[in-house]
Amino acid sequence: MKVVNAAGRLIETDISGETFKPFSGAKKHNYSSKITNLSDALKKCGLKDGMTLSFHHQLRNGDFVINKTLETVLNLGVKNIMIAQTAMFNVHNPIIDLIKEGIVTRIEGSINGVVGDYISRNPLPYPVVLRSHGGRWAAIKKDELHIDIAVIAASASDERGNSTGIIGKSAFGPISYSQVDAMHADYVIMVTDSIIDYPCKYQEIQERYVDYVAQIDRIGDSSNIMSGTTKITDDPMELKIARDCVDLMDAAEIIKDGMIFQSGAGGISLAAMKYLGERLEEKKVIASTATGGLTKLIVDIYKAGHVRNLYYSQVFDDYAVNFVQETLGIPADIGHYADPTSKGRTIDGLDTVVLGATEVDINFNVNVNTHSDGRMLHGIGGHQDTAAGASLCIITCPIFRKKNPIVREKVTTISTPGEVVDAIVTDKGIAINPKREDLIENLKGKIDIVQIEELKELAYDATGGPQELEFEDRLVGCTKWFDGTVLDIIKKVKGLE
Amino acid sequence: MKVVNAAGRLIETDISGETFKPFSGAKKHNYSSKITNLSDALKKCGLKDGMTLSFHHQLRNGDFVINKTLETVLNLGVKNIMIAQTAMFNVHNPIIDLIKEGIVTRIEGSINGVVGDYISRNPLPYPVVLRSHGGRWAAIKKDELHIDIAVIAASASDERGNSTGIIGKSAFGPISYSQVDAMHADYVIMVTDSIIDYPCKYQEIQERYVDYVAQIDRIGDSSNIMSGTTKITDDPMELKIARDCVDLMDAAEIIKDGMIFQSGAGGISLAAMKYLGERLEEKKVIASTATGGLTKLIVDIYKAGHVRNLYYSQVFDDYAVNFVQETLGIPADIGHYADPTSKGRTIDGLDTVVLGATEVDINFNVNVNTHSDGRMLHGIGGHQDTAAGASLCIITCPIFRKKNPIVREKVTTISTPGEVVDAIVTDKGIAINPKREDLIENLKGKIDIVQIEELKELAYDATGGPQELEFEDRLVGCTKWFDGTVLDIIKKVKGLE
Repeated sequence: MKVVNAAGRLIETDISGETFKPFSGAKKHNYSSKITNLSDALKKCGLKDGMTLSFHHQLRNGDFVINKTLETVLNLGVKNIMIAQTAMFNVHNPIIDLIKEGIVTRIEGSINGVVGDYISRNPLPYPVVLRSHGGRWAAIKKDELHIDIAVIAASASDERGNSTGIIGKSAFGPISYSQVDAMHADYVIMVTDSIIDYPCKYQEIQERYVDYVAQIDRIGDSSNIMSGTTKITDDPMELKIARDCVDLMDAAEIIKDGMIFQSGAGGISLAAMKYLGERLEEKKVIASTATGGLTKLIVDIYKAGHVRNLYYSQVFDDYAVNFVQETLGIPADIGHYADPTSKGRTIDGLDTVVLGATEVDINFNVNVNTHSDGRMLHGIGGHQDTAAGASLCIITCPIFRKKNPIVREKVTTISTPGEVVDAIVTDKGIAINPKREDLIENLKGKIDIVQIEELKELAYDATGGPQELEFEDRLVGCTKWFDGTVLDIIKKVKGLE
Repeated sequence: MKVVNAAGRLIETDISGETFKPFSGAKKHNYSSKITNLSDALKKCGLKDGMTLSFHHQLRNGDFVINKTLETVLNLGVKNIMIAQTAMFNVHNPIIDLIKEGIVTRIEGSINGVVGDYISRNPLPYPVVLRSHGGRWAAIKKDELHIDIAVIAASASDERGNSTGIIGKSAFGPISYSQVDAMHADYVIMVTDSIIDYPCKYQEIQERYVDYVAQIDRIGDSSNIMSGTTKITDDPMELKIARDCVDLMDAAEIIKDGMIFQSGAGGISLAAMKYLGERLEEKKVIASTATGGLTKLIVDIYKAGHVRNLYYSQVFDDYAVNFVQETLGIPADIGHYADPTSKGRTIDGLDTVVLGATEVDINFNVNVNTHSDGRMLHGIGGHQDTAAGASLCIITCPIFRKKNPIVREKVTTISTPGEVVDAIVTDKGIAINPKREDLIENLKGKIDIVQIEELKELAYDATGGPQELEFEDRLVGCTKWFDGTVLDIIKKVKGLE
């Protein structure tokens, strides 16, 4: 067909068997500032009952943004909201009241502390879905988890929405969790307490994804933004476990030039990193890359020349934040770090990672989500992702804590399946997953290995065995493997009210 | 339904009315190098007849990658390929033989020079589709243009595919066109002549999108990588036009603190930027941002303190490449710069842009694609995008060249519709689009304006009017507006063989 288009040209609409649309007119693409307040931003995004709002947790226990947003939702008379935060802390205690009032009725995201305790006693109509960092990224990408409005905290933003967490009075390190929310949510609101001149110099989130920039007084309490989990343990038993981790790495022959290791937070893991740094120095080995969370400890190893690159997704202390402000280095957002649907990830080449556990079992399954009394108090974080990515995944724990056996027949909840766990280092010995025959062979004559069942027996002897829990049918939550399948369910414990 | 999953847990598959999949097993995500050769990479990507291969043009007239890839396609016995390059230069002359042999049968992408001349005389079975930078980005994002295999030149890559154009012996500035190809193509091959240690420090393309890294001897001839279009004109008539552009900006009151301007390549545009730099200095005005292509000229304006930020998508000369290697600044990929489907773009706040034309008409339509003899010799580039984005879009041209009127009744091809063109600055006066009544009012008494029809008459008087072309029905190509609609068609001229 021939038609005259809006530019006055006679054009064909069928060319070589394909259909072409005629030009219908052009207009100037004008521009206006996106700055508004949080309430107006939510209204302009069409906030209504039943929607899903997402958040990141990089302001940690200093975060004001989740509470402030949900308070605004309450004031707007909207209810029945699902929240999809990357994690939640004790500062989010006000959510308990919002749950009671029916404002928040569903949660898909990690929960640490008081809100988890409350929900363990008072399950929501839907189970809380716990995912790993990489699993959450993939779920949003695949629309298994659909976000209506992403509410993203930034320590600085320009009026167009180019935003960062690196600079500003509430700096928390590069925004690394929310790119997937920004790309896939229907609407995106950047929330900031610092509007800076265009163009924002750092742009972990770019204007192309941003609908509104909501200015609030303060996004967080800077004294609580930096995590408390970055203190190295001074417990002699834990220090021994940390040292044994490094001996295990050494015996497994992975402490060599070019090694890539994950540096997490958590007392024993940090101590292991400290000893690894010393071992690198002793052996005159230069590692290629430290991935994961950045702490002063890791920056010091870098500055001492024992690791060539810092490839970080989070920044855990003020020292590391200042370091990043001066020397950006190579930040990796969580998708680059751990998206299981991608063609290549930071964690895929990981030689080793040292991770914690609240419980482990004789099948090498690890629980990091529930306490042995059945309360859901922690998220999965990068546990699954790094365990599956690392050649040598080391889990550390004492065999018992107080009267509770940590090494046991069955974990209360499976967070990471034993299939991807290679070693468990405890105060009473190191157990290697029998499926890792190569590793067991390689370690022979170099390091003592015990059977996991022996560790369990020792733990049971010392404690009298685990507390038996009785469950109701009501679901508190479930853990998903990073491919979206259900790894385990968390039921309400009878008597926990 | 209750089932026992692969972790041995009894889980529910129907929870609160939703279906959950049971865990089916975990495995270690192991990693291996992606390095291979180009032929194997293409084979592993399942190259076959009828596929679409995409390329960027940032190696310009020094590019070896398109020719090398198509030669490999030929050697593999594959034919009927569509190529979707961002632009093509005279160095791509060998494509003419591949067209003759049926290896390349369809092109959607900008064509400069000899290949365009050939196709103008020998149309392909499908018309060449010409899109703007932003239009191409949107077409790939919307799958209007589907890429089977993206072949992306990088001046350095690590073995996982984290890649850059900033460093390496064939550095050409940040890769800025290919992110959309990487994100949406079925397969992605990085082609490089410089494999560097993991992790590559700059990563315009990240491993998450990369299937293979193909190592070749040289990706380009560095003496031809940097464009020849960055020489300022020394033609007195063109210098006058450039100066008049700056007088027009001044009269339109846009030369003020915080202004944002686009710095393109091309003789007159560059001269206008030089004069704008001087005017900023004279008026003691500090511009906010220079966007677009980076040249020594713009870096000098920045170093002199007359513009606070360089927000660049391309780097045009060695001086600017070196500058970027030392001071990364704020690169903007083409999606950030110009994707019309995004929520915010660099060009949306543009105060002014100075663009060229091969022809303009009395409706302010601009042709940059065809010569007046009907030959398709140039791409659209960012012409449409910046014209629609800028508050004051200035087109520069002489009213005639040799015996050919440039200002005319109707352009041979519409590249950018008059609707988004504000002013045409010529050697014989400045015409303002009558639709811009506000601008005309604002300029009164400050600057002389002529009617576009007067300029046309002068051009016709001096040349005897335009050469009339007779067309065949066969289509050489078409121009699309950045929303995917057909702006104009390019037919084969009778007698052009």
